[in-house]
Amino acid sequence: MAREINVGILGLGTVGTGVAKILLNEQALLTARTGMSFRLKSVADLDWDRERGVDFDGVYTTTDINEVLNDPEIDIVVETIGGCEPAFTFVQQALGNRKHVVTANKALIATRGKELFTQAEANGVDLMFEASVGGGIPIIKGLREGLIANKFLSIYGIINGTSNYILTKMHQDGIDFSQALKEAQIKGFAEADPTLDVSGGDAAHKLTILASLASGGMVDFNSIPVEGITNLTTMDVNFAKNFGYVVKLLAICRFFGEKLDLRVHPTLIPREHLLAAVNDELNAVFVTGNYVGDTMFYGPGAGETPTASAIVSDIVDLSKDLTLKNGEQFSNRTVNPEQVAGLMPLEEISNRFYLRIYSLDKTGILASIAGVLGECGISISSVVQLETHGEKEFVPIVLLTHEAPEKAMNKAIEEIAAFDFVRSDILRLRLF
Amino acid sequence: MAREINVGILGLGTVGTGVAKILLNEQALLTARTGMSFRLKSVADLDWDRERGVDFDGVYTTTDINEVLNDPEIDIVVETIGGCEPAFTFVQQALGNRKHVVTANKALIATRGKELFTQAEANGVDLMFEASVGGGIPIIKGLREGLIANKFLSIYGIINGTSNYILTKMHQDGIDFSQALKEAQIKGFAEADPTLDVSGGDAAHKLTILASLASGGMVDFNSIPVEGITNLTTMDVNFAKNFGYVVKLLAICRFFGEKLDLRVHPTLIPREHLLAAVNDELNAVFVTGNYVGDTMFYGPGAGETPTASAIVSDIVDLSKDLTLKNGEQFSNRTVNPEQVAGLMPLEEISNRFYLRIYSLDKTGILASIAGVLGECGISISSVVQLETHGEKEFVPIVLLTHEAPEKAMNKAIEEIAAFDFVRSDILRLRLF
Repeated sequence: MAREINVGILGLGTVGTGVAKILLNEQALLTARTGMSFRLKSVADLDWDRERGVDFDGVYTTTDINEVLNDPEIDIVVETIGGCEPAFTFVQQALGNRKHVVTANKALIATRGKELFTQAEANGVDLMFEASVGGGIPIIKGLREGLIANKFLSIYGIINGTSNYILTKMHQDGIDFSQALKEAQIKGFAEADPTLDVSGGDAAHKLTILASLASGGMVDFNSIPVEGITNLTTMDVNFAKNFGYVVKLLAICRFFGEKLDLRVHPTLIPREHLLAAVNDELNAVFVTGNYVGDTMFYGPGAGETPTASAIVSDIVDLSKDLTLKNGEQFSNRTVNPEQVAGLMPLEEISNRFYLRIYSLDKTGILASIAGVLGECGISISSVVQLETHGEKEFVPIVLLTHEAPEKAMNKAIEEIAAFDFVRSDILRLRLF
Repeated sequence: MAREINVGILGLGTVGTGVAKILLNEQALLTARTGMSFRLKSVADLDWDRERGVDFDGVYTTTDINEVLNDPEIDIVVETIGGCEPAFTFVQQALGNRKHVVTANKALIATRGKELFTQAEANGVDLMFEASVGGGIPIIKGLREGLIANKFLSIYGIINGTSNYILTKMHQDGIDFSQALKEAQIKGFAEADPTLDVSGGDAAHKLTILASLASGGMVDFNSIPVEGITNLTTMDVNFAKNFGYVVKLLAICRFFGEKLDLRVHPTLIPREHLLAAVNDELNAVFVTGNYVGDTMFYGPGAGETPTASAIVSDIVDLSKDLTLKNGEQFSNRTVNPEQVAGLMPLEEISNRFYLRIYSLDKTGILASIAGVLGECGISISSVVQLETHGEKEFVPIVLLTHEAPEKAMNKAIEEIAAFDFVRSDILRLRLF
């Protein structure tokens, strides 16, 4: 007889509902593929009035989360509440009760992962989080199992669907940020409050997780330099396009020996690069390992069933824990919470830059700007200055530079912004 | 103390050498990540004169393969000989001796997998083959673990690096097949005898494996319709380009209920599709699951260290078998050799087509050809006929059609080829 695995779900929002559907509808498939029987035993949520299109016959439904957390029969707890609290408290309680936990909660793992992994380890259980990055894409498994032989050299991720949808529309349809955002909201690719997505915060949560896995230690979420896409105009996207680039919100993890270069910011990607072809709400993670070389994992970064697909794969993996000899653990499942990877300060990184400067049209402006860049050791690779139609109108000057240190560029921008013919809102983007 | 896993390698060609290098050079990394210690205990190869850049100090090296196969200390045998025999006999012997086996040998799995999986099952050991498809890309793991919750709807693979390199050069540089092949051979992306690659046979081996995993049963390699890329001219590639397509050798697996549509043939892919951006010797597998939606796995499909990276991930996964309770097995590791998936006959499939017809330039030719297509129920979506510069010169007429059954197209081609003004070498390609 198939071993029975009892699963409890905390939180029946979009993702929790997706997990319930798969567990209830795909019992035969999962048993055929695994030899185990997965039973959705109980679900806790405060709201049972909402219609979710799921028949919970035979499932214990409750508003009291403790009925799941303290049920000795439950083997695996799925946390699909989201946010840091109360999710953190519940996950901690589940691990304390020696239950394996699966979560899609990137904020939780990125900011409280260290405590949770330590607690899981102490209790001999696992905390799994495949759905926390890249939704349905098996990127976590890819990094720590499929590519286990590799030292990672770099990871570049388009890992925020909302931003990618907005940037795709700005690039393809020439519409502006707010219009693209509105479209994303109508299509369900952006939340009513999209701040975390368009500010880069969500991508930074996910980058924290990827970088922790790749470095084998925990990365401090708060140390990651983050820029969102809210300052980008359609004009910038079009200038980039004319230069042969596509602008993407990129999460970057590069290794310099033991140090990590971590950043989230809009990035100009050459249009021939595979990442430039990742459009709409789709996600992709481009991973380079010392043995495997360049790989890319692509797919839906969010949504009910893609995210649930990832959570169910974690549930299946956890079910294997129950086939282990006493005292054995899957040791490559967690990062080492004791080991903290050091970050390269952004100032020390070199990049190629895109600069957009609004200036009055006076004689010698370009010479002045170029002069500052030259003094700072920054050489220009391309320039576009548009004509003005009035003496008091600011016109955009757009520059691409060769590689230069951030420190030098900071100084140059400060000096250029000090010119009385230049507006203070200089936009700096970085090239891939 | 870390549990010690003893590994033996059969065959020290490119891939075997890569595995040896990783096992010897990355002991600390692998132990840190897994808690296990991986020891390359012995290596069998007939040729020990060749310099491989590996220091085999402390490794038992032999020309007698039985010294590996019959060594009771060896836990895992890596087969990197290639081809069906003697690899089949050796793998069978290893499984019979209750050793886990890892292989990169797609021909072996595709043509003898059924026997080998049955034997592995009977002996309570596993046969792993991540490296057999897509080289370093963790696509096997992705399909059977990461996407385990999904019914698969379709799989499209660019899974032969040699062909993809040749087609990329034909497309980008406008050179012809033989010149591109020569370049591929110089760069090491094509064998001295490239027949298996350019004929589609290698891709069909890999498709057999992907389709078996996706269907949960064994697929009969010999039933797969296969066309290679040898009939493609630069002209065809250019016509496709002008129509907005990129020609790729595509391995196709589509599900129609319980039936499978399996094919390998050159395919016109719209240039906006992500698969069209998979260039040079790189591979990609585009997988659609009912829950996850569209995903893609991209990376190097061959080469010493990418392939070795995949083999080492299998070795690590197999090491977990040793932590299982007595009698437990990882049941989602193998396909069900008893279950045989049925194939849709190619005749019953509908496709959009590209037709290239050489004809003499006479009045009414196009009307005659279009007439035949119309009678067969095939409607034309696009046509190009080039001017002739001499009455006895054959000129190409290229057509794109709307979707039509293969059966209808077979009939149409037969009738068109029967015209006395048409050359017999009509080329039929299919659209994605």
